[in-house]
Amino acid sequence: MVFVQIREAKEGDCGNILRMIRELAEFEKLSDQVKIGEEDLRADGFGENPFYHCLVAESLPGPGESQGQGIGSKIIKKVAEVAVDKGCSQFRLSVLDWNKRAMDLYKALGAQDLTEAEGWHSFRFEGEVMRKLAGK
Amino acid sequence: MVFVQIREAKEGDCGNILRMIRELAEFEKLSDQVKIGEEDLRADGFGENPFYHCLVAESLPGPGESQGQGIGSKIIKKVAEVAVDKGCSQFRLSVLDWNKRAMDLYKALGAQDLTEAEGWHSFRFEGEVMRKLAGK
Repeated sequence: MVFVQIREAKEGDCGNILRMIRELAEFEKLSDQVKIGEEDLRADGFGENPFYHCLVAESLPGPGESQGQGIGSKIIKKVAEVAVDKGCSQFRLSVLDWNKRAMDLYKALGAQDLTEAEGWHSFRFEGEVMRKLAGK
Repeated sequence: MVFVQIREAKEGDCGNILRMIRELAEFEKLSDQVKIGEEDLRADGFGENPFYHCLVAESLPGPGESQGQGIGSKIIKKVAEVAVDKGCSQFRLSVLDWNKRAMDLYKALGAQDLTEAEGWHSFRFEGEVMRKLAGK
């Protein structure tokens, strides 16, 4: 049994958040896309008009501990709670098509794959392309 | 020749913005997904911590006027400018896979199709599913 507490992130969590961003990117084989540092995470998430909000799941080991059990769905339920409280009509997640475990979890929780169902593609403008478009 | 001015949206634009949201949804064959009203647009975009920001393109007809010429790329360039000024490392757009004209424009401007290139899918939790997850 693992006891999981989900809470809002504090500025002091940024080191651990960055570590988990890197671990996720490694799993996704996209490590070269992580260009953010701890200072960026602090500035973007904990200033006056934050660019992002973040929840942290802490597991408090109990007898017969086993890692990761149900933490994903607990976090998604908490996100749903925040979304409803803020008056959102929906929330979205991005997932890689080979990450079957994540996709199966989201589907089991009732999500719809919009890319499959309706054909939505995600386009990215970045770096030099973005700066050139901006004339900077 | 059409002279186009791009500016930040004002609260008084919400009626026209809603009309264009509906026109876009009709084009996308997704009219049933537009559940928002003008009041929501006002509340979400023009309160203290706005949920969205919006740019408006106004065309000022000149001699030999022709509709729509280059307005899409002018808006994207403006979005790039705002993104660079705010310190963003990238910005993204969602597009339906049969909307070749939009996809071709984004590609011509240097965007990368992340769904095609890396396999990203967009998952949506909404309505009853979301409220049930939230326990509300």
